[in-house]
Amino acid sequence: MGPFEQLQAQLAEDMAAVNELIRTRMASKNAPRIPEVTAHLVEAGGKRLRPLLTLAAANLCGYRGDHHVLLAATVEFIHTATLLHDDVVDESAQRRGRPTANLLWDNKSSVLVGDYLFSRSFQLMVETGNMQALGILANASAVIAEGEVLQLSVAQDLATSEDTYLQVVRGKTAALFAAACEVGAVIADAPGIHQKALYNYGDALGIAFQIVDDLLDFGGSAAVMGKNIGDDFRERKLTLPIILAVAKADGLERDFWKRTIEKGQQYEGDLEHALKLMKAHGTLEATRKKALSWAAMAQDALEPLPDSGLKSSLKDLADFVVSRLV
Amino acid sequence: MGPFEQLQAQLAEDMAAVNELIRTRMASKNAPRIPEVTAHLVEAGGKRLRPLLTLAAANLCGYRGDHHVLLAATVEFIHTATLLHDDVVDESAQRRGRPTANLLWDNKSSVLVGDYLFSRSFQLMVETGNMQALGILANASAVIAEGEVLQLSVAQDLATSEDTYLQVVRGKTAALFAAACEVGAVIADAPGIHQKALYNYGDALGIAFQIVDDLLDFGGSAAVMGKNIGDDFRERKLTLPIILAVAKADGLERDFWKRTIEKGQQYEGDLEHALKLMKAHGTLEATRKKALSWAAMAQDALEPLPDSGLKSSLKDLADFVVSRLV
Repeated sequence: MGPFEQLQAQLAEDMAAVNELIRTRMASKNAPRIPEVTAHLVEAGGKRLRPLLTLAAANLCGYRGDHHVLLAATVEFIHTATLLHDDVVDESAQRRGRPTANLLWDNKSSVLVGDYLFSRSFQLMVETGNMQALGILANASAVIAEGEVLQLSVAQDLATSEDTYLQVVRGKTAALFAAACEVGAVIADAPGIHQKALYNYGDALGIAFQIVDDLLDFGGSAAVMGKNIGDDFRERKLTLPIILAVAKADGLERDFWKRTIEKGQQYEGDLEHALKLMKAHGTLEATRKKALSWAAMAQDALEPLPDSGLKSSLKDLADFVVSRLV
Repeated sequence: MGPFEQLQAQLAEDMAAVNELIRTRMASKNAPRIPEVTAHLVEAGGKRLRPLLTLAAANLCGYRGDHHVLLAATVEFIHTATLLHDDVVDESAQRRGRPTANLLWDNKSSVLVGDYLFSRSFQLMVETGNMQALGILANASAVIAEGEVLQLSVAQDLATSEDTYLQVVRGKTAALFAAACEVGAVIADAPGIHQKALYNYGDALGIAFQIVDDLLDFGGSAAVMGKNIGDDFRERKLTLPIILAVAKADGLERDFWKRTIEKGQQYEGDLEHALKLMKAHGTLEATRKKALSWAAMAQDALEPLPDSGLKSSLKDLADFVVSRLV
């Protein structure tokens, strides 16, 4: 049993409650299109990693109520809403190996059903009566949107630095990982140092997760990923392996990146050439090391928390997130 | 001085605080695209009718703090977020007489900046510490999204009933009017009967407002409206004047509506013919009467509240909303 399955087993009862809550709250009796779209998303599955983090954090901090279930569902709703909007923004055709909602219905439905889920997420939070948790997740939502807008405005800009990349990754991915962990500690009324520890764990885990995702785009298999190798390259996204390669490029290589990423003129064999350049400069390996380093930071962040089976599982999860790279 | 200007004068100090708050909170130092888009929206102006309702309701209920300013800004942020998303959904090119954000930048920016403003609105609410107000505005947001999705799925369906139209209008417009009024009473800790009265006022006012908007689409001037006559017809939107005309249509007329609305085959002279049919069946006049009746209901709803200058202004506002029809 892998670390992810172990965590699922440890939290099976709570997770069943979360899934039931997601199922009932995604429906809408007033607008039939909503359950059609959300059912498509629910059936597509997804790992439910973020709500699992909330449940793990709450339990790790000794929580005994049932409001962590509401917060875990909230986190998944926010995530699903951002996926719906991302697919519109990226004009994606596939998500988790299935056609996206914007392709099956239309962009309009994806925008509005995303808005609906986002509103529902705040309704769930209100039910907890916990203003601190509300503040954390409202902040995270704002940071996510900022990260996505930042990604949009630096897209195809070869001058994008590693710092800017990190800021985008923190926004679009790590903010929700960090908030998911933190609210689990907050609902358990854990001491500030434990809240902060879990926030830091989620932040580092999220960064590791996204770096791995960006790296796998140049080396994973479509079957595992639900997307094809080189999608980011074709969409002219400046992820870390390319940013590092651009930094080391000579004049000719720079021309290549300018043409393919900035101007978007891509021809047969360009992806292969991009991979060759990244390998020549060792940027795939350098990116892999960064991911491993963030995973190690995630593990270190848990230090202040008392040892327990769940703490071990969270540590193992950090290894697991980068294990696809080994 | 008209009733709207009178209300603005009565609440000038509070409204200045709201405008300042909107200005500062719309910015984002992390993603420069955000202030570009939001500045465009702020410059475009808009009447700020909804935040004015919140301020009026709070003051009418004797509120003495400053959290009503936060809630008023919240309401305007939610409204602005829905406008950004609406323009994407409707593929609009003009709003308030200026090019829309989706035209000036792109749909992606409109979706994401809308998400950002929506998140910011929840941050503002959290600052009030008032969980009841949060619940009301979270519910309103969900109802707005449901209304928009419902409108999408009944679009171009000639079988759309007046009831369904009302449900759409309640969702897309009246829900935020009602919530804007209700939270003003809630933050003032007004008795339940006053909260309910202000909710009912906002609900009826919002319905009157939207019916008038739909009616003016067949008779306002582009200069006043910031949109052109017949836009809804060209976009095949089933608003009340058409719904009532379809209900009274004979076989030939039904074929006309089927062709122009259901199939979307519109030619030169069709708008004029549609207007002729609506006039022949008196549906513009019948729609006008419905708007007047909702305005009267809005005024009646204020009955339980003690008489005051603000109460008179709110009553006059209901007249003003439908006055463009006289």
